[in-house]
Amino acid sequence: MSLMNNLSTSMISSSSSTFLAPTSFNSSRTQSVSVPLKSINIVKCVATPQEQQNAYKTKVSRNANIAKLQAGYLFPEVARRRAAHLLKYPNAQVISLGIGDTTEPIPDVITSAMAKRSHALSTLEGYSGYGAEQGEKALRAALASTFYRNLGIEDDDIFVSDGAKCDISRLQVVFGSNVTMAVQDPSYPAYVDSSVIMGQTGQFQKDVEKYGNIEYMRCTPENGFFPDLSKVARTDIIFFCSPNNPTGAAATREQLTRLVKFAKDNGSIIVYDSAYAMYMSDDNPRSIFEIPGAKEVAIETASFSKYAGFTGVRLGWTVIPKQLLFSDGFPVAKDFNRIVCTCFNGASNIAQAGGLACLSSEGLEAMQEVIGFYKENTKIIVETFNSLGFKVYGGKNAPYVWVHFPGRSSWDVFSEILEKTHIVTTPGSGFGPGGEGFIRVSAFGHRENVLEACRRFKQLYN
Amino acid sequence: MSLMNNLSTSMISSSSSTFLAPTSFNSSRTQSVSVPLKSINIVKCVATPQEQQNAYKTKVSRNANIAKLQAGYLFPEVARRRAAHLLKYPNAQVISLGIGDTTEPIPDVITSAMAKRSHALSTLEGYSGYGAEQGEKALRAALASTFYRNLGIEDDDIFVSDGAKCDISRLQVVFGSNVTMAVQDPSYPAYVDSSVIMGQTGQFQKDVEKYGNIEYMRCTPENGFFPDLSKVARTDIIFFCSPNNPTGAAATREQLTRLVKFAKDNGSIIVYDSAYAMYMSDDNPRSIFEIPGAKEVAIETASFSKYAGFTGVRLGWTVIPKQLLFSDGFPVAKDFNRIVCTCFNGASNIAQAGGLACLSSEGLEAMQEVIGFYKENTKIIVETFNSLGFKVYGGKNAPYVWVHFPGRSSWDVFSEILEKTHIVTTPGSGFGPGGEGFIRVSAFGHRENVLEACRRFKQLYN
Repeated sequence: MSLMNNLSTSMISSSSSTFLAPTSFNSSRTQSVSVPLKSINIVKCVATPQEQQNAYKTKVSRNANIAKLQAGYLFPEVARRRAAHLLKYPNAQVISLGIGDTTEPIPDVITSAMAKRSHALSTLEGYSGYGAEQGEKALRAALASTFYRNLGIEDDDIFVSDGAKCDISRLQVVFGSNVTMAVQDPSYPAYVDSSVIMGQTGQFQKDVEKYGNIEYMRCTPENGFFPDLSKVARTDIIFFCSPNNPTGAAATREQLTRLVKFAKDNGSIIVYDSAYAMYMSDDNPRSIFEIPGAKEVAIETASFSKYAGFTGVRLGWTVIPKQLLFSDGFPVAKDFNRIVCTCFNGASNIAQAGGLACLSSEGLEAMQEVIGFYKENTKIIVETFNSLGFKVYGGKNAPYVWVHFPGRSSWDVFSEILEKTHIVTTPGSGFGPGGEGFIRVSAFGHRENVLEACRRFKQLYN
Repeated sequence: MSLMNNLSTSMISSSSSTFLAPTSFNSSRTQSVSVPLKSINIVKCVATPQEQQNAYKTKVSRNANIAKLQAGYLFPEVARRRAAHLLKYPNAQVISLGIGDTTEPIPDVITSAMAKRSHALSTLEGYSGYGAEQGEKALRAALASTFYRNLGIEDDDIFVSDGAKCDISRLQVVFGSNVTMAVQDPSYPAYVDSSVIMGQTGQFQKDVEKYGNIEYMRCTPENGFFPDLSKVARTDIIFFCSPNNPTGAAATREQLTRLVKFAKDNGSIIVYDSAYAMYMSDDNPRSIFEIPGAKEVAIETASFSKYAGFTGVRLGWTVIPKQLLFSDGFPVAKDFNRIVCTCFNGASNIAQAGGLACLSSEGLEAMQEVIGFYKENTKIIVETFNSLGFKVYGGKNAPYVWVHFPGRSSWDVFSEILEKTHIVTTPGSGFGPGGEGFIRVSAFGHRENVLEACRRFKQLYN
């Protein structure tokens, strides 16, 4: 999902130089290739404690779980290195293929619906206040019929949200601190981070680059990026993303059938992240609920972000079938509903109007065009690396290309590419130790930038 | 803040009758007074465990903290009683003055800005993807200069959010499960609920109607709705709302100075909820940061909901001064920033465009008009109850009127009013044991409905 998250506009950095590590950077020096590149400011989401000797301190202890989070974590580190690069090369025409942020305009059929809803809020008939925290009925119904027709998912199993990332954290609040969890290794960092924050894990173990008490399910080319379940310990929760971020791998029907059986045998709950399902080219399931029995063991999170360019508009959804029960028989959906009611007030009504427009026949067609554009980008990137003799994974079912640099450090490759081509990628090891030796190249970008990046890759590696 | 939260569209209720307690209700029978009343569906945010004997159950234990939440909590209970009332009187012209939900259209200067931003997202120049999780720079700057000028609050101390309720929960995630907390009694239920969810409390004690390990600071007419701090035990966190929901009381400068001193002496952190600050008529502080030294002990949450009718648009903000430090010297703002980066992706860019328009000179004027309208409603309600000989509190600095029915049960009064006038209010005891004997009457409503409600109150109590 979001890789731009931690790269975005500075928080504490701008006005207090003593308060921040010296990473402030004036992004105005970033220059355009052919289409203006977004200005990037740097934020430091984690900082090391700084004793402020003479300052007043409260007597409130810092949350020990949050203190476990690693300072040198992926995105702040990428941001720091990018910033350092731009200080060194102030005129560099930097291209970002590191960030999973959409770049193409939202189709007019969708933005017009949002504009219409905005204007309606100025009328007596069109005004609406608090909506249902679970989302507007029409949108829930449209989601059910568009994505889950004939899968036994009902409108009221669907919770509309302000994005999958937000729902992942709300799910963690539902689960609490006493559950155990498994993640694909490599995986989207929000699963592990939110688990650490909730106190489900031990400390970070530097030698293995893992947190204690998390089961890392290794996904490599050798196992087709699907974990060897016979070697996976039982956990309460299993986070599973397909098509996968970062590897781009999509699990087959047979693999997902095994995963569901594994969960069922263990009494585990799968949190299935399907944020890239519409990028699927192969005939793999687009929803975990295509697998018989999944409703008793799985939750699915999804998002409009990468389909409609809604990364800034904020709209997603989570499916929790009423058949999914805790060990005492209590429905998981009811506790999620309680959290949604207490900790959230629903997605913006304007964004929901946009979501409904996305699911109209015109909207679906328009989304497919946007997705097709990014898939074309992906193809260009895959062909470039293939032509250079690299082993390339992903790219077919997801907007990410996972390039293998055997025996090399991800960070070294990241630095080499940045230094010599001014292209920002994402080092695979940032997604977990299983990503070491890989680079993730994102296909989100204007065509001119993607083509220029590929020219530079060819210059570097030819 | 939001009282509509838990009253809104049904979640699990609509399609599975066995899954839900029998509270489903077809709201189409609700009829209009003079302006169409919003249709109300019923949701049950808490349910009792139902063993599903033959159903598959996972082996994941239900989160014991969430299980502590009371089934008979305020809003589901109000919703149930309203539903029962409408079943009994299908043609009743129900007026809701229970819900703190805005009813008046949003000024055009604000919705036009949101529509413009929506359309711009369809252009190459106007498109934006992931924004800063902390909010757009221009909005943070406008918030700082509008609400905190000369108070030493800087742009980067301000975090834009999708609403104060959401930020309260994110703050609780920052604090974690090992802190102690105090609340005003009565108080907005989200403080206590989010504390229970995070595991900061003991079980609910039915005899005193309090959760263990929470310090309830009694606020009554006798103490001018300001707690006797000499009797308040030290806690890590102190939630304090002024102007207050539900009592409508606003703390004076002298009282807030005492509160800040109390926090400083104890090393506590105040979470100051100022969601109704613009409703202030008296010369009381509108921000806790007007009190010298508050930046070292206080956080402030705020919202556009009740100023601009943004309850459905979703936009708020939280101020965490960089001077606020945990006991180890680590800045609270940095951990909040980490949570915002990991568990949130920023408020909708369209809502933020609306927020920026709110803070233009035209927008501020338009908001003042909306607020003035609701204040006029408040005056009508206050005068009505005064004329009937009731002791009435609040109403001057907040859109809530706190009516005393000495010696009577809040729920009995609620039922009496509903039964005899078809008006929904909120029983004071739902906000904590200190609210017993009171009814909260909300001033959010169309003028015709407020006038009609007051006619009915006069018929009932004359």
